[in-house]
Amino acid sequence: MNPLSVIRVGICGLGTVGQGVWKHLERIRPELESRLGVKLELTRASVRDLKKRRDVKVPASKLTTDSLSIAMDPNVDIVCELIGGTTLARQVTLAALTAGKVVVSANKALISKHGAEIFEAARRHGGHFLFEASVAGGIPIIKALREGLVANRFPLIYGILNGTCNYILTQMEEQDAPYTAVLGEAKRLGYAEADEALDVQGWDTAHKAAVLTFLAHGTWVKPEQMIVEGIDRITPIDFKNASALGYGIKLLAVIARDFDTDELSVRVHPTLLPESHVVAKVSGVFNAVSVRGDVAGTTLYIGRGAGQDATASAVISDLVDAISLLKNDRRAFITARKASAPARPVRACRLAPSEHIRGRYYLRMTVSDEPGVLAQIAAAMAAKNVSIASVIQSAQEPAGAASLVLTTHQSDERAIQATLSRLARLRCVLERPLLLRIGDFAD
Amino acid sequence: MNPLSVIRVGICGLGTVGQGVWKHLERIRPELESRLGVKLELTRASVRDLKKRRDVKVPASKLTTDSLSIAMDPNVDIVCELIGGTTLARQVTLAALTAGKVVVSANKALISKHGAEIFEAARRHGGHFLFEASVAGGIPIIKALREGLVANRFPLIYGILNGTCNYILTQMEEQDAPYTAVLGEAKRLGYAEADEALDVQGWDTAHKAAVLTFLAHGTWVKPEQMIVEGIDRITPIDFKNASALGYGIKLLAVIARDFDTDELSVRVHPTLLPESHVVAKVSGVFNAVSVRGDVAGTTLYIGRGAGQDATASAVISDLVDAISLLKNDRRAFITARKASAPARPVRACRLAPSEHIRGRYYLRMTVSDEPGVLAQIAAAMAAKNVSIASVIQSAQEPAGAASLVLTTHQSDERAIQATLSRLARLRCVLERPLLLRIGDFAD
Repeated sequence: MNPLSVIRVGICGLGTVGQGVWKHLERIRPELESRLGVKLELTRASVRDLKKRRDVKVPASKLTTDSLSIAMDPNVDIVCELIGGTTLARQVTLAALTAGKVVVSANKALISKHGAEIFEAARRHGGHFLFEASVAGGIPIIKALREGLVANRFPLIYGILNGTCNYILTQMEEQDAPYTAVLGEAKRLGYAEADEALDVQGWDTAHKAAVLTFLAHGTWVKPEQMIVEGIDRITPIDFKNASALGYGIKLLAVIARDFDTDELSVRVHPTLLPESHVVAKVSGVFNAVSVRGDVAGTTLYIGRGAGQDATASAVISDLVDAISLLKNDRRAFITARKASAPARPVRACRLAPSEHIRGRYYLRMTVSDEPGVLAQIAAAMAAKNVSIASVIQSAQEPAGAASLVLTTHQSDERAIQATLSRLARLRCVLERPLLLRIGDFAD
Repeated sequence: MNPLSVIRVGICGLGTVGQGVWKHLERIRPELESRLGVKLELTRASVRDLKKRRDVKVPASKLTTDSLSIAMDPNVDIVCELIGGTTLARQVTLAALTAGKVVVSANKALISKHGAEIFEAARRHGGHFLFEASVAGGIPIIKALREGLVANRFPLIYGILNGTCNYILTQMEEQDAPYTAVLGEAKRLGYAEADEALDVQGWDTAHKAAVLTFLAHGTWVKPEQMIVEGIDRITPIDFKNASALGYGIKLLAVIARDFDTDELSVRVHPTLLPESHVVAKVSGVFNAVSVRGDVAGTTLYIGRGAGQDATASAVISDLVDAISLLKNDRRAFITARKASAPARPVRACRLAPSEHIRGRYYLRMTVSDEPGVLAQIAAAMAAKNVSIASVIQSAQEPAGAASLVLTTHQSDERAIQATLSRLARLRCVLERPLLLRIGDFAD
């Protein structure tokens, strides 16, 4: 018997996603086996606590607390790394790739931090690293970028990549409720983690943006090199102001490349999107990714970005691809393609300097309610060549303070940051202004 | 030198799409070659008229008027069938598959009519048939269904699959203009064919629905077995009525399967969609496909459904897959998977009888404006157990006639068709009522 007629899968990490994979894989195994012409064996799974009760029934003989032993087990062909974090997950991933195995991962933090090392290990040892589940859950966006849109270059990719933030923003808007109240409710419902920082400060979105950037442009951009701003300073007032201006507010990742200059910008920030824009309608825990291809035009992908089942769907899609990799010649083309290639071979690109990242801006600040304030602020902005497009001023508690909302004409990140510094130094500006970007996406 | 280190592509049909493929492939060939590790050769192309001026420069020595000679040429590995129609296109496709070649096709009419024969020929002779471009142009929906969502069964797929119809409906709504005027304008702009019947009567959408049905459910449903209704009887009045009820109107394909009974229904009809529904916002020539998966939940795909570039993007994606097929062992798993498999191995299913196709309906009829008419109509509907949910009555030209719009509660196709027959026999109903379906899609 050809040893590859049995494919042996090990699952490292039997948390929510791991159990989902186990559950659905067991359910559809007979169908997959008949279609793929292999026997599929769930060989081993690693857990932190052997005694914990789980929703899926895994024979005790298959359980271990030693994830690394699965990664190095010669009786395992495919390792699903569903541990999370970047320490043990990295060790497990590198060990499995070094052993020439296929690793399937949902771990965007790991890829963002150690992607270059991981893909190099895969290349060097003939392993494969698949990661459909790392971005946008049940939406097959990795496959779309890498295979379906292979003829395209990608001048612009943007989208909602974090369901927790989108849920919070949707609730704040619909219920006119403050951030902290909605966050608390989201935690109670399990839509937000106990430690929400990674999500609401934009870092999780940045990790996913890094993965998409690598796929689209073949380069690794660290979150620290991006503009990353979260949603935690947005208030119900901002939704009212945005609405008065004809916008909704979404936390977007934006990956833009100018193919004339080969300058790339990657950023994560709350964005005012025209209410008529389809992405502005994507609410709750849903994700959306808009991909502008230079051949296909813009395609848009919407679906559940997280959760046990959506993530398991993506992991299983990778598992099926992994099986076809194992059944084919490891030296064949598809190897190189799956294991390490970005969407297309790409010219080198570099990060755009901040003065080349252009856009329009929304600024909300609390100012002292006294004569001459608007003049001082307008002068500070004019000094940095930032031109004001609209002003909304309203009284605000406590008495003596006013809320001032300005939108700007086209400016750039360098000018607006310089303006923010200047504004913060004005005595009449009572707290750090909130800066939101206006999303001028034609499609 | 391994003969597969040069991949030779023949293009049958150098019309709009064929020229697009040639143009983009020539442009990105160096990148693709370096990535795929092959030399890619555009070997031959067939045309109807050798002397016609074309936008792409093809050496005269590569041109032929004999498409079949390309299909049978031992020096061609991949045949792009972009001829259109179902006669020569079928001959070319079968000849190439019989010769063990890979055929890439954008021809939904061909697949809908001869799919079973084509896939059988591919299976028998070790050929491959790829058809990403046949549905929804630049959106990689075939790949999503077959690979990205492989873990899923599909209880519901619906969407806008014909850009011409969506353009016409959008224009009718936005400009409050009658069908014939908008159609004429669409023809002038090149958005509609000289013979518009295939598009506006729903048959093109039905062909695409047949392709999606095969992918999702492994069965071929002929357009004649579907409910197929077009957009040519819709009037600006219907948009006003729909809007008053909170709906827009879209021509949808709907593929629904009940996995308890394994009954399948495939239908194409103008559909009232709630204005808040994301698909209702998809306007102009764009397509949208909503896919409910039992694991991933609902994912939605939006993009350009036709046009030279969007279609070329899909054809080139298939070409790249074809190259990987040719570089791998032809007997390997991926062969079977790509060549003939539906999205998943599927249980047999059968077409649902019309009484099991349930829904709510919108009926507009012109009636004589006289006492007792509503009573007669209500009685006719009650006799078929169709329950009225709302009524809009308005005066209409010529004098003596009135427009009556009814919506129903849940009913079924059998009851509503019987009701239509009964209504048509009433003297007070002056012309065949227009029937639209109400789309109650939760997501």
